[in-house]
Amino acid sequence: MDRSRLQRRLEAVRAHSLALAQPLSAEDCALQSMPDASPVKWHLAHTSWFFETLVLGPHCAGYRVFDERFGFLFNSYYEALGPRHPRPQRGMLSRPALQEVLDYRRHVDAALQGFIEAGHERALSAAAGLIELGLQHEQQHQELMLTDVKHLLSLNPLQPAYLPGATPRPPGEAVPLRWLDFGGGLVEIGHGGAGFGFDNETPRHRVWLEPYQLASRPVSCGEYLAFMADGGYRRAEFWLSDGWAWVQAHAVSAPLYWNPEAGTHFTLHGACPLDPAEPVCHLNLYEAAAYAQWAGARLPTEAEWEAAVQLQPAAPMAAKALEGHLHPAPAGDGPGLLQVEDAVWQWTRSAYEPYPGFRPLPGAVGEYNGKFMVGQNVLRGGSCASPAGHVRASYRNFFAPAARWQFTGLRLARDGA
Amino acid sequence: MDRSRLQRRLEAVRAHSLALAQPLSAEDCALQSMPDASPVKWHLAHTSWFFETLVLGPHCAGYRVFDERFGFLFNSYYEALGPRHPRPQRGMLSRPALQEVLDYRRHVDAALQGFIEAGHERALSAAAGLIELGLQHEQQHQELMLTDVKHLLSLNPLQPAYLPGATPRPPGEAVPLRWLDFGGGLVEIGHGGAGFGFDNETPRHRVWLEPYQLASRPVSCGEYLAFMADGGYRRAEFWLSDGWAWVQAHAVSAPLYWNPEAGTHFTLHGACPLDPAEPVCHLNLYEAAAYAQWAGARLPTEAEWEAAVQLQPAAPMAAKALEGHLHPAPAGDGPGLLQVEDAVWQWTRSAYEPYPGFRPLPGAVGEYNGKFMVGQNVLRGGSCASPAGHVRASYRNFFAPAARWQFTGLRLARDGA
Amino acid sequence: MDRSRLQRRLEAVRAHSLALAQPLSAEDCALQSMPDASPVKWHLAHTSWFFETLVLGPHCAGYRVFDERFGFLFNSYYEALGPRHPRPQRGMLSRPALQEVLDYRRHVDAALQGFIEAGHERALSAAAGLIELGLQHEQQHQELMLTDVKHLLSLNPLQPAYLPGATPRPPGEAVPLRWLDFGGGLVEIGHGGAGFGFDNETPRHRVWLEPYQLASRPVSCGEYLAFMADGGYRRAEFWLSDGWAWVQAHAVSAPLYWNPEAGTHFTLHGACPLDPAEPVCHLNLYEAAAYAQWAGARLPTEAEWEAAVQLQPAAPMAAKALEGHLHPAPAGDGPGLLQVEDAVWQWTRSAYEPYPGFRPLPGAVGEYNGKFMVGQNVLRGGSCASPAGHVRASYRNFFAPAARWQFTGLRLARDGA
Amino acid sequence: MDRSRLQRRLEAVRAHSLALAQPLSAEDCALQSMPDASPVKWHLAHTSWFFETLVLGPHCAGYRVFDERFGFLFNSYYEALGPRHPRPQRGMLSRPALQEVLDYRRHVDAALQGFIEAGHERALSAAAGLIELGLQHEQQHQELMLTDVKHLLSLNPLQPAYLPGATPRPPGEAVPLRWLDFGGGLVEIGHGGAGFGFDNETPRHRVWLEPYQLASRPVSCGEYLAFMADGGYRRAEFWLSDGWAWVQAHAVSAPLYWNPEAGTHFTLHGACPLDPAEPVCHLNLYEAAAYAQWAGARLPTEAEWEAAVQLQPAAPMAAKALEGHLHPAPAGDGPGLLQVEDAVWQWTRSAYEPYPGFRPLPGAVGEYNGKFMVGQNVLRGGSCASPAGHVRASYRNFFAPAARWQFTGLRLARDGA
Repeated sequence: MDRSRLQRRLEAVRAHSLALAQPLSAEDCALQSMPDASPVKWHLAHTSWFFETLVLGPHCAGYRVFDERFGFLFNSYYEALGPRHPRPQRGMLSRPALQEVLDYRRHVDAALQGFIEAGHERALSAAAGLIELGLQHEQQHQELMLTDVKHLLSLNPLQPAYLPGATPRPPGEAVPLRWLDFGGGLVEIGHGGAGFGFDNETPRHRVWLEPYQLASRPVSCGEYLAFMADGGYRRAEFWLSDGWAWVQAHAVSAPLYWNPEAGTHFTLHGACPLDPAEPVCHLNLYEAAAYAQWAGARLPTEAEWEAAVQLQPAAPMAAKALEGHLHPAPAGDGPGLLQVEDAVWQWTRSAYEPYPGFRPLPGAVGEYNGKFMVGQNVLRGGSCASPAGHVRASYRNFFAPAARWQFTGLRLARDGA
Repeated sequence: MDRSRLQRRLEAVRAHSLALAQPLSAEDCALQSMPDASPVKWHLAHTSWFFETLVLGPHCAGYRVFDERFGFLFNSYYEALGPRHPRPQRGMLSRPALQEVLDYRRHVDAALQGFIEAGHERALSAAAGLIELGLQHEQQHQELMLTDVKHLLSLNPLQPAYLPGATPRPPGEAVPLRWLDFGGGLVEIGHGGAGFGFDNETPRHRVWLEPYQLASRPVSCGEYLAFMADGGYRRAEFWLSDGWAWVQAHAVSAPLYWNPEAGTHFTLHGACPLDPAEPVCHLNLYEAAAYAQWAGARLPTEAEWEAAVQLQPAAPMAAKALEGHLHPAPAGDGPGLLQVEDAVWQWTRSAYEPYPGFRPLPGAVGEYNGKFMVGQNVLRGGSCASPAGHVRASYRNFFAPAARWQFTGLRLARDGA
Repeated sequence: MDRSRLQRRLEAVRAHSLALAQPLSAEDCALQSMPDASPVKWHLAHTSWFFETLVLGPHCAGYRVFDERFGFLFNSYYEALGPRHPRPQRGMLSRPALQEVLDYRRHVDAALQGFIEAGHERALSAAAGLIELGLQHEQQHQELMLTDVKHLLSLNPLQPAYLPGATPRPPGEAVPLRWLDFGGGLVEIGHGGAGFGFDNETPRHRVWLEPYQLASRPVSCGEYLAFMADGGYRRAEFWLSDGWAWVQAHAVSAPLYWNPEAGTHFTLHGACPLDPAEPVCHLNLYEAAAYAQWAGARLPTEAEWEAAVQLQPAAPMAAKALEGHLHPAPAGDGPGLLQVEDAVWQWTRSAYEPYPGFRPLPGAVGEYNGKFMVGQNVLRGGSCASPAGHVRASYRNFFAPAARWQFTGLRLARDGA
Repeated sequence: MDRSRLQRRLEAVRAHSLALAQPLSAEDCALQSMPDASPVKWHLAHTSWFFETLVLGPHCAGYRVFDERFGFLFNSYYEALGPRHPRPQRGMLSRPALQEVLDYRRHVDAALQGFIEAGHERALSAAAGLIELGLQHEQQHQELMLTDVKHLLSLNPLQPAYLPGATPRPPGEAVPLRWLDFGGGLVEIGHGGAGFGFDNETPRHRVWLEPYQLASRPVSCGEYLAFMADGGYRRAEFWLSDGWAWVQAHAVSAPLYWNPEAGTHFTLHGACPLDPAEPVCHLNLYEAAAYAQWAGARLPTEAEWEAAVQLQPAAPMAAKALEGHLHPAPAGDGPGLLQVEDAVWQWTRSAYEPYPGFRPLPGAVGEYNGKFMVGQNVLRGGSCASPAGHVRASYRNFFAPAARWQFTGLRLARDGA
């Protein structure tokens, strides 16, 4: 184990969370816009609680808990770790103050760095997998910090920007969509080799696929506007039954954050003109499936998606969050599958289910993934808000069919010849 | 086409619906106990509307619609067939009276019989598939008539029996549960040969399966009581997250219709003693999955279930609804898979999704199945309430994870060697 | 006590309930359209339960209860009389059948008639007040039977008539509205003399009134249409805050049962043309108050209403329910206050509160009125659906501000000189 | 007009709001705990908006609006003043920041002070009534700031104190409760003389009262504990019907903020021991009426309350909010009515209705009171959180029957001889 490398990695990941909170006031960090979202302050505390409770407490001799009461406040959903504050009430916590949560982070960081630097080899080995899990976990919350605060700011009539001052690109047209052929057959998917993977990506296993095609890039805003102009939100024939009920119950007529009359949408940079060249995002599964139906296509299964991406030479991923534009950019042209993981999460037609032979991690972290395997669909890829280096071909993201506050879009699929 | 055979089949299926309504008063037939359920009168009318609208109207020259207003009242969910009465309001229809609905049935039956007897060959050929679909559709509603009226009667403090006078069996113990091995590999599932199949069972296609085991019979009440006695409804570790939330929100502590304190449950024959030998039923997916987790097993996938059942020699199905006991009976002993289709629907771990290459039927009946392929799980088998001859190995039933008013139980599965 | 007169009165009142149910099928009588309304069958049973439980059980030696289980089913809200079936579930009772409820009525009637004819003087004296209360109670339910079934039938797209075949009057114009002056001062209101009065009308007591004016007749449909045409439902300035919230939450733009586009409204005689001359009805308190505000007037207090009506010579009341038109008729012209009690209940600005010195009746019937004295407003007068002879000047009807399924309208008031 | 006196008064009232916010962080000030409550930041801004919109805009020549967008954000409920941010969303406003709201206050204060100092006599005269209304309005919000933040802090499992460090009194026993006799007759109530009064207190008018008695002091915690010990929350016979439904729907067993097992309650000073000598508070109307019923008494009408208080020699009011204990203190002994306005608001049996001859103020401020005169009950007196000098004998406070987050208790009444 390379202790100093782990120290640097820990420092970098933890610092990135603070960097994401930096443009925000304590007030911004305290509010919760809906039960599905959490306050940024809560994310900052919960990710520290994860290290404290699962790494430092059980593995680091002599660790002193920062505040005994935080176990109740910042446990997210681990039944095995005791009772906890109800999720919809996370926005009622003006105390602890943001400053106190930052102190909490420093306390946990110092203990972790000390443990990595000087902990017994055996204790550190035993904890190494959980430290890595904690880092991956923190990266997942980094994306949520951005999507949750975007939702909060969108509810404010002042339409404040998370990062003001972005220069909008001149609107354009997306590069042409090409169809790529895949032969199917008996393929292997799932995480199996070296490197980190969540338990829900395992075991690597065989799947039979019929021949299929995937679109070279995600669906663009321009294409989605054509769907809308063709009565997409008013014609039941494109929609799943639950989706049509959702459209009617909420009088939906555009993706989340869109203001079609004004030709704008709300972004982390404030209200911006809609660029037809951009990948469409903030769609839920119902919208994605309805668009595909309208387009004479369908959503891919997650196995189709992963098998196809495995055939791609790995492209160096572009710099992303906080280093550039916090919104999906238009695809550049090129061969093969474009914007696999740097633009929008891509809805699949696959429900989130256990792989054959799936075993949850032992202990409390067994609740990390397995218990959510019902009522959700898998998304593949990654988004403009995913931390650099976090995702991979076998990565399984998942949300309920109606959710649309993530950077979620779609890539079309068709049956092959 | 054998016209007289079709006439006899039509007569038999339609008569069975009336026979099911026979023990009920007009008052019983008018009430709706929840939005998921429909009044028996509505079922009787809707199944007639199906024939009138999809067979007689388009295919039978000179057909006179019984009442123009019934199109609005008895369309279930076909967007392509125009607006309709809201589902939760089906219980507000004291008019048309039951007697008028019975007249409607006679009108439609007479027209159908006349059409089959004397219709032009070409017209009848064009309609034949829809007539068969209408019969299968009516059989599906026959099962719903029983489950819906069971739910209604269960809400009545008088606990009235749909069929009084059943003699309870002496309680016993289920036959031993054996584990049967299946090798997996590249199997074929789905409907492909002769005979009727719904569009959701097609196309027949290949699936790769790892080796697995299935239990020889469904889980029994006695086994489920052991789960309850072991704190099954109080221990989060067995439950999917949504399931645990459901248990807590509704303070659930037993299957639907059970009165564990009294050792009884409500059945179509009134309140009866719980027989440990019987298959447990009226479980939802959450309960089925929690039981399996407690038992150190899991639910099968639908492909595992179907591939296994294909290997079974077809057993002549026992006489069922209305001819015997309207409740799942204990399994008799024997080799192979027991109670495949005559006791309880068996929850699978598979979400209800389109098969690869799935194409809905053309026209309005394309809405029959495809648009419901989200948010539900597949059940396999059949139940004590399924009409004789209705189900088959490739049959896909489906309900939302929380639903439990059907005759739904489970058969355990395990990974194979 | 005149036993035979009481027998005749009992017979007449009880027969009237049956007469009201006569145009209805068992299906009509079983359904419940909303929690506020009850099935007609329930009304028929509950009014019998009232006599059985409060008169026959305690006072009639040897009375045999018809069915012990009915106490649970047909207790409305008497906490002192034990647990009961939840009100919103009254429409789940297909059993007992209507026929069984009619048998129940006969059983109770026979016992009551026998008790009146042959009961011990002392027992009958002790019960006399409760028998009278039971008769008055039954009359209240007679009005509810009509308003509840009207609501049920209105939800049916077939728009069935309770009493078909009514010949609509030619639409006309209301007689001119005159303002009548009342001097106020120290007046007496409340029930004090001979004859029956509910406990909520007592004690008779003094109230100081400033001079005021009352309109000679209720507001007409024509006048209300002018309010609507002037933007009545779109202009916040006329509305109480709760009322405006109600208008917006339910997108209200007309009285209940109105179809302004078609110029019709749904009545117990089916859909009829709106007659501008008729008193407007099916208004809730919010609508009544908004109209008054628009008209530069206000609602009267209940003391103003009662003090004014006391000054009127008693007019012989016109024949009403079932003997004529089951809808408020236009006022005929004449001096004084018109349509005091034969057209619409008239909302007052007075919350339903205890009179000074109010004492509820002793025993369970103390729950009859007193416990409802919060959150409701008083209505005065009577309606086209009130049984003949039931109401009087001191009568206090009461409903929640948002209720509008009763025959409720308004009479304007103004401050006097 | 004494300009400098008005300047000093303005400064004092406005400074008091800031003093109330002083113990709170920006995070504390941003959160909204329920739709009925508002964030402290919102109160600070709204009270400034009131002056800006109703005084400075129309009356102060050359006034520059601080931020045009605040009209939408901080309009509470004035339909005449345009659309506004929905009340339940007030807690979604992390921007404007608290600091910006404090700048807003300074801007408005400077303009007001300048206007009072140098405005034209005529303009100032025209505005004088509205300035006074604005000050009274701000005082009402000062009380709400305390009750709203108390509710927010109570939801935090850390149970933070608004003002830490209070020394609890030694628990004791309340001074004896005496009954005071009042003869009733024709009395006058309402605001009529010099000094400020809200429109809802006018006009002064005559009311006839029967003889009655009032308790010398509010009900104490000790007395309320006896009610609880006697099954108060489990016995339907004490409760109004709506109240009993409320008890059961929410499983209520104690006043808001009480922890009877621990013998403590949550206060603005954190969790404190319950002192039997203190007036009970945080009761809603249902609880107050149930207690009175249990005690063989009743709630007073507002006229009884006011007529009695008019007979009291005015006592100099004790120093209150922020200068002492922010919780009702035990009554000291003495003659006459004790704790008229310095402990708890006292529920009356009187619905909040217009007085005879009531006329709302002209213009937008006509919406201040009149439109809320339905569905609420009047409370009389004042509380430990009412600003000094704010209340008077004719003051009418009002809340919905179920509300209990205010400092609300009760004073018993009885019919007189």
